[in-house]
This record gives sequence, structure tokens and C-alpha cells, in this order.
Amino acid sequence: MSDLTNNAVIARDSSRLMAVLDTETKNKALLAISEALIANKDSIFAANEIDLVEAEKDGLDMPLFKRLKFDDHKLSDVTSGIKSLIGLEDPVGRIALHTKLDDDLDLYRVTCPIGVIGIIFESRPDALVQIATLCVKSGNAVFLKGGREALNTNKVLSEVIYSAGVGAGLPEGWLHLLESREDVTAMLSLNDYIDLIIPRGSNSFVQYIMKNTSIPVMGHADGVCHVYIDDDCDEELALKVAIDSKTQYVSVCNATETILINRARKNTLFPKLVEELKNKNVEIFFEEDVEEWHHEYLDYKVSIKFVDSLDEAISHINKYSSGHTDCIITRDGAKAEKFMNSVDSGNVMHNCSTRFSDGFRYGFGAEVGISTSKLHARGPVGLEGLVTYKYKVYGHGNIVDDYATGRKTFKHIKCNI
Amino acid sequence: MSDLTNNAVIARDSSRLMAVLDTETKNKALLAISEALIANKDSIFAANEIDLVEAEKDGLDMPLFKRLKFDDHKLSDVTSGIKSLIGLEDPVGRIALHTKLDDDLDLYRVTCPIGVIGIIFESRPDALVQIATLCVKSGNAVFLKGGREALNTNKVLSEVIYSAGVGAGLPEGWLHLLESREDVTAMLSLNDYIDLIIPRGSNSFVQYIMKNTSIPVMGHADGVCHVYIDDDCDEELALKVAIDSKTQYVSVCNATETILINRARKNTLFPKLVEELKNKNVEIFFEEDVEEWHHEYLDYKVSIKFVDSLDEAISHINKYSSGHTDCIITRDGAKAEKFMNSVDSGNVMHNCSTRFSDGFRYGFGAEVGISTSKLHARGPVGLEGLVTYKYKVYGHGNIVDDYATGRKTFKHIKCNI
Repeated sequence: MSDLTNNAVIARDSSRLMAVLDTETKNKALLAISEALIANKDSIFAANEIDLVEAEKDGLDMPLFKRLKFDDHKLSDVTSGIKSLIGLEDPVGRIALHTKLDDDLDLYRVTCPIGVIGIIFESRPDALVQIATLCVKSGNAVFLKGGREALNTNKVLSEVIYSAGVGAGLPEGWLHLLESREDVTAMLSLNDYIDLIIPRGSNSFVQYIMKNTSIPVMGHADGVCHVYIDDDCDEELALKVAIDSKTQYVSVCNATETILINRARKNTLFPKLVEELKNKNVEIFFEEDVEEWHHEYLDYKVSIKFVDSLDEAISHINKYSSGHTDCIITRDGAKAEKFMNSVDSGNVMHNCSTRFSDGFRYGFGAEVGISTSKLHARGPVGLEGLVTYKYKVYGHGNIVDDYATGRKTFKHIKCNI
Repeated sequence: MSDLTNNAVIARDSSRLMAVLDTETKNKALLAISEALIANKDSIFAANEIDLVEAEKDGLDMPLFKRLKFDDHKLSDVTSGIKSLIGLEDPVGRIALHTKLDDDLDLYRVTCPIGVIGIIFESRPDALVQIATLCVKSGNAVFLKGGREALNTNKVLSEVIYSAGVGAGLPEGWLHLLESREDVTAMLSLNDYIDLIIPRGSNSFVQYIMKNTSIPVMGHADGVCHVYIDDDCDEELALKVAIDSKTQYVSVCNATETILINRARKNTLFPKLVEELKNKNVEIFFEEDVEEWHHEYLDYKVSIKFVDSLDEAISHINKYSSGHTDCIITRDGAKAEKFMNSVDSGNVMHNCSTRFSDGFRYGFGAEVGISTSKLHARGPVGLEGLVTYKYKVYGHGNIVDDYATGRKTFKHIKCNI
């Protein structure tokens, strides 16, 4: 058995123990992790310094360099994140359904952890802390693989977090850091031990993972987001929302990449929109210049297309959107409702910026990613996406034969929960 | 483009229209389907007769032959099934969350159809009717592939159902019947058009499907179910539940295959259990005779093993169970709770038969299958498992920049729903 498989077996065993931890133990572990991060900050920062020097040698872009940096400011962010996580309700053990099948036979649907989760994430060390602590609160064991640029930082962070967790009552083997791409490849075949893989990255990366594993995948992929401006719109509102959607922060997945505008507004709103975008230094690609509508610029660039109707807008979006976030600007509530029901995306907005689609802004607390998959969890995924459920039936010697032969009849009384 | 791909493109377009159907139209379509089945019963029975004659020539087993038969009795079953489906609440458009992000900015989580679902099922023509009508009510387009023994029946049934549905307002292309194994293989690569595959069949079949597609799979696989009899048990109750779990109906996935018995009951309960099983003509395989603990007999056969503790029982079950249904018999509530939280199965029972784990007995109405997958839907899957959700945000020109710069602050007021 390879080292990785062996670690997966241990993680699976560990996940059984994680599943029965009480809320108090999990919160105690989170507090211990937070304190250990502060106590070990010098060695964390020192490891991060090595990564930063390497990154500088490799000529890493400034935005990526900033994301890689783990300093007092980031430490303070993650510890306050842990504090708010401690305050959140335990996602495990929630009762979603209670039916009295008969007077002495009770059915419950109860949330429970998923088991072992494999998460592949970008070169942002604070993401490691967020993900690991979300897994603690949701009672899952976790395999972590971060970007290679952050390897030294991630090693120290994961050691500190793992040890503090075990010291506070988490079972051995609850967290394991993968260090190489070969480990990721090997992990994809561990379907007997790993229950869910969450890849964060480009669409092609998520597709690659999906094509190379039979483990369920919850993809956090591209955002090719759209704003459709209807003929029946408030022009001032349309301008404000479109500009914010495109320019408020361009390098993120919920920034808009394509603006569809009803041709009826060609002579009125359109010139104003172009002027505003140019004022914000946005390069515009008109219909004739666009080679690929399914393209994520992540930059001060936007595609613009005229459409003749709401239906054309919906068709275009369903063809080219990545299913992340799409917006309609209209004064007509019925049109908005048609758009929001027909557009097959995780987040659909009416008269507000696409930039709102985010776990923090939605009030979900920390998030493990934004799912562009349609099943299990969709849109911003917090603690709820890290649990599944099971059915529990409590009886008193009840047998099916009594019901099959008609001696007894099911009552199926729905109970309040 | 192959015919199948072309049909998938049409199904995807159709699914966008299915998603916005109102409840009344869907119920009208269901009623029309029910009436059309009755009106066309002669041609359905004639087609079924051809399948039955072929099956007899091929020497099909009597139980399979019975399942293949579609007569007045089965017709009456499916039409009364449709009647109750019409009476169920529409699973689409249910609001699961409402948060006021700010005074004029509302977030809702709303259920919506999954899109296009591919379902592969056994040689039971009534299953085709159940699945197709569940898809209508949940607003999904559907690709259906039934067992080859039922092909003639399935062709007529699907034509009748499809036409009646379209006549009552369902969009063209909402249902498509696959006829060959090659079509199934081809379907597995249509990840741009199909959102979910539900294979019903053996564990190895479900595994095969999972390994050969990047489309999400909701498996309906083997039931290797267990009853664990604790040392602290009521012997009469234990006997009753164990016998029902094993013998009430042996050829189904929720019948028990292994009984684990605490060694403390070796001289008291154990001989009585053996005697009762023998009275019911159950062949017993003791520990030394069992070659493969992960084995589904689907017959009057059972494996029996002594364990020394609750922990040993839990370990055995987590190693060999298929994650379908497992039961503990004990008088000790704390032990029951530990078992039910630690055993990683979709259904866990305390002091009642494993045979209860079933959509009808749980009061869910018709079911599309019993999921042994852990994500999205687990256990018996009815209408709820055929929908996902999206986030809808309703604003009045709200932009993120106001919140990013501190001019406004999120309120995140949870609203009652």
C-alpha cells in the first residue's frame, strides 16, 4: 500500500470519529487552532518568507504575490474567521424531517458529515486555514493540496493546525497535506476512501479533475458572468449596476465579462455605457471582435452584444455562461422572473450587481468555494455544503410483515421540527 | 452530430422550457398521460405480449417474468401512482432561505429542476411510467433506457406518454427513449447536455457507470444490509426484527444479508435465532464459511458473525456494508445513538426491520430509486432528489462598491419562510 493510500485509510477511520464529535469538542479544537497559529506565527512567517523569495525569483505577478503573502494582517483575518466559525451553529445533527410512520415508529432525516474531503486550492495560505477549520466544524477529515508556490507556508500551517486539533481532542489522521502533483493524481483513484473532491481553479482544471476520477466532484470553476440590459430599464440604474459588475474588482469570478444590451437602447443608453466603461479604462470588444463568448477576461475588458429580445438574451447566456452569476436589468417584474427561472445559473440577479454573489455577502460566513456544479451544493458553499444527511428510524420491535399483511397501516404523520 | 447528440441538444433546450412550466400545466400533463395510458392499453398490452413471448423463449426466470408483465393490474397501479403524484406539492419554486442582505436587497434560495436526467433502469415497464411522470412533476427533461427484455413495451409506453405530454403543453423533446447499449455508452460522454445519470442496478454496474462518465451519478446500487444484536437486548424483539429483516422479502435491496450478534448472547439468543432461521428455510453461513462479507444474497441465505463489542460491529459494518441500511437491536439508547451516528449508511435503524427503508414506507410517495451515493440525495429518492436550487437576488440598483467602501453595511436579516 502506498503512503498516500495508507494515509487515506487512516483518514477514513478518522472520519468515523470526527462524525461523532460533539459541538463543544469541535469548538474547543477551533479555539486551540487559533491560539496555536498566533503562538507559532514566527515560524509561519519565516516559512512564508522562503516562499515569497522563491516567488520573486520566479517573477510571480504582483496580485499573486499579494495572495501568497501571509503576514500579521492575514493572521488576524484567519483568527477572526475562526472566531466567527466557533459562533456558527453546528451543521451536524440538524433534523430536516420527522415523520411518525406509526405511533411507535419514528423517521428522522438528520445531517451528518460527508466523510473524507479532498480539496485542491490556489496559492493562498489563508485558504488552507479556512478550509481546514470549516472541515473541523462540519466533522470531516480532509486531504489538502495547495498551490506549489505556498508549499513551505502550507507545511508549517498544516503541522500547527493538525497538532493543535489533535491536542484538543480531534482524532489522529484528521488532516493530511499533499505535497506533489503526483499525490493529486493518486488521490483521484482513491474512491474507496475519499467521498468528495473540491477543486478550486480554472474551468479546464475542474474539467480535468472530473474526467479523471469517479469520486464526486464539486467544481469551483470559471465565472463567465453576464449583465442583460432590457429595453424596459431605468438607464441610470442600468449604468450603475453594469459598471459595478464589470469594474468593482475585475480579477474575480463574479465580475461580469459580457454585457448584453437590448437593441432598443442603441441610441440612448449604449453610448453612455461605452463612455463610462472607457472612463474606467475598460477595453470593449464588440460583437464583430469577439472570437469566443465563453471567455473569462478577469481584467478591464468586456464583450458587448446587442440582442433583440429577452429570449435571445436567455439563449445566449444559457449557451455561453459558466453557470456562475447572471443579471437582468429591467423594470418589468414578469420579465425578470422569466429570466431568473430560465437562466440555468447558480446565482441570478435582478437590478443588482453580479459582484454580490459571494458567501460573505450572502451572510453565510466562511466559504469553501463557489460551486458551479448543479448537484448537492450550488453557488457559495459554506458549512452546509460540507454535510450530507442520513435517515434514522427508531422503533420498538416493528416489522414490515405487519404492514405487508395488512395487520397494521402506516400513519405517516408529519411532525413539526 | 450523431442522432443521440442531436436529441440531447433538443432535450437541453426542452429542459429550459420544462423549468418554467407552472404547476397547473404539469398536473394537466400528468392527467393527460394517465388517460392516454388507459386509452392505449390494447396496444401497450400487445407490445408487452411480444416481450413476454420472447422472454419465455429465452427462459427468463419467473420473478423477472412477473416484473416484465404489464397488465390491467400494473396499469391500475401506475395510474393511481400518477393520481397521487398530481396531489403532491410542486417541488419546484420552494423557498428554502430568505435573507434581507439590506433593506432593498433580498436573497432567496429557491428550488429548480436539475435539467436533463439520464435514467437507466431494469426490465420493469411500470418503472418507465413512474420515472417519466416524476420527471414531469419535477420539471426535468429525461433520457430513458430500460432493460432490453422490455423494449417493445417501453417503445409503446414512451410514445404514448411523450405524445400525451406534448399535447397537454409539455415542450417538444422532453422525453427520449434510448434503445441500445451503444446509446448508453454514447450518453455517458454527453456531459454538455446531461446533468445527472441515475443508474439502477448492481453495484458493479453503478461502479462501471461512475468510472466511465464525468457526469454526476446518483447510484442505486446493492444493499448489503446488517442487523447487529447487542448484548443488552430484548431477545424476543431481536428475533422478531432479525427474522423480518432477513425473510420478509428476500430478493430486495433492503433485506438483511449479515447478522452480527454479540458473543454474550451465544448460549441464549443464538440457538433460538438459528432455529427460527432454519424454520424459515434460511441457509446459514457461519464465520468460517463466509468467503466474502460484502455479498448480496438476495435469497434465503444469511451470514452470521459473533462480535465482542459495539465497536467491532460498527467497524465490520463500515468495512462491508454497501451503505444502504443497517440496524442495531439494543435496549441502550446511548449505544443506539453511537451506532446510528458512526455507521456510514444512508439508513440506520434502531429496534426495527431493515425492510422499512423504502420511499413508500417513509411516506415520500413514488421514488426514482434508493441512492447509495452520499451527495445530493441519499436513501429513498423521490421528487426532492430531482431538483436542485439556485440563488435569486432582487435589488434596486444596488452595487458592491457601496459596501466595499463602507458607505453601506450588510444587514443579513434572516426572514421567516
